[in-house]
Amino acid sequence: MNPLPLDGFAEVTQDLVRLTHLVGSAMHTATQALLESDLHKAESVIDEDVEVDAVTSDIENQCLDLLGHGGLTEPDLRVVIGALRMAASLERMGDLAEHVAKQARLRYPRSSIPAELQPIFATMGELAEEIVNMTGQVIQTRDVSLTADIARHDTQVDQLHRDLFTTVLSPSWTHGVEAAIDVTLLSRYYERYADHAVSVTRRVVTIVTGAPYVGVSLDDL
Amino acid sequence: MNPLPLDGFAEVTQDLVRLTHLVGSAMHTATQALLESDLHKAESVIDEDVEVDAVTSDIENQCLDLLGHGGLTEPDLRVVIGALRMAASLERMGDLAEHVAKQARLRYPRSSIPAELQPIFATMGELAEEIVNMTGQVIQTRDVSLTADIARHDTQVDQLHRDLFTTVLSPSWTHGVEAAIDVTLLSRYYERYADHAVSVTRRVVTIVTGAPYVGVSLDDL
Repeated sequence: MNPLPLDGFAEVTQDLVRLTHLVGSAMHTATQALLESDLHKAESVIDEDVEVDAVTSDIENQCLDLLGHGGLTEPDLRVVIGALRMAASLERMGDLAEHVAKQARLRYPRSSIPAELQPIFATMGELAEEIVNMTGQVIQTRDVSLTADIARHDTQVDQLHRDLFTTVLSPSWTHGVEAAIDVTLLSRYYERYADHAVSVTRRVVTIVTGAPYVGVSLDDL
Repeated sequence: MNPLPLDGFAEVTQDLVRLTHLVGSAMHTATQALLESDLHKAESVIDEDVEVDAVTSDIENQCLDLLGHGGLTEPDLRVVIGALRMAASLERMGDLAEHVAKQARLRYPRSSIPAELQPIFATMGELAEEIVNMTGQVIQTRDVSLTADIARHDTQVDQLHRDLFTTVLSPSWTHGVEAAIDVTLLSRYYERYADHAVSVTRRVVTIVTGAPYVGVSLDDL
């Protein structure tokens, strides 16, 4: 079975997979910058976001070229439009990794997060990386059996996000308002990053199965 | 001069304008719900978001139909792709209005925001409404001279967003962590709503002038 419904779409697919690697690597490094208060790593994530933007722009231009050839069937059109949306979501994931890095830079040389919450953010970072790796595999192979695993990881991220809310709002929180806001915003960046990855895999499922796209509710609290 | 480069694009344009009205009205009512702790108004915003989603979906299908006819020139393709992106941004603005309404509902019958900050949120609500009204005019008329005014309004929203940050982080803040987080998240919803409106108008400018799209950096703090 040929997984590519369009001649010329192979390059778009490869670029989408490349985007998953770039934004996965960005979140990995941003999490290290956050946990280690490493200014150099934070700066590198911020600097390298231009590459994410460049690949996204390449994908958009390739999709415009494909659309410009005309005569595409409706399923093919949905593939190309789906690719445009996946690229937009992946670009946004790069921005969210950049937001984590900017937060690390903002408080440098202090840490944005109290020591006792570091393991939770380490776990959120790992889950985010695993999700985006699986997302890349789904785009590459169109093996949509991974989606259940992706959804499970996303549920774990959501749970950690809610736990962190409970923590900063508990009477025993002693780190003050600034740290509470930092933790809330950072947690939100990971949660939305995971949600965007889920939305990308749902797009692939739509394309593979022809089922209607079921939107994921992004950044609900 | 015919402002519509494509036969069949008139309906898409009207639907985009309609979306600006819907999400403008949603933010208006959500702000009232927030300021008046009005559960009924909050619920109505949450319930009516399905209409925003339905119009967005209509626009997407119309754009797919236009693309399916094939033989579009590159400028025409950019118009259709631009419309898809404008619809996505406007839909997101509806979600952000819904987030404001959900926040009002979450704390009901209490208010999410301390009394002394109510005038600032009232102003943010007014600015958001003015921006989306102008955005609708830009889509309708393609008169891009309004963009400077939109940018000025957006700058005011950004300034209020920064002021609120300063307020909740100041030593004189007496309302605790929960209220600080509520204010921060709410302020962020207005700020991102305005940013998305700016990104929509930039898309129109791109289409009218043929200049490359300059992305707006969304939800930077």
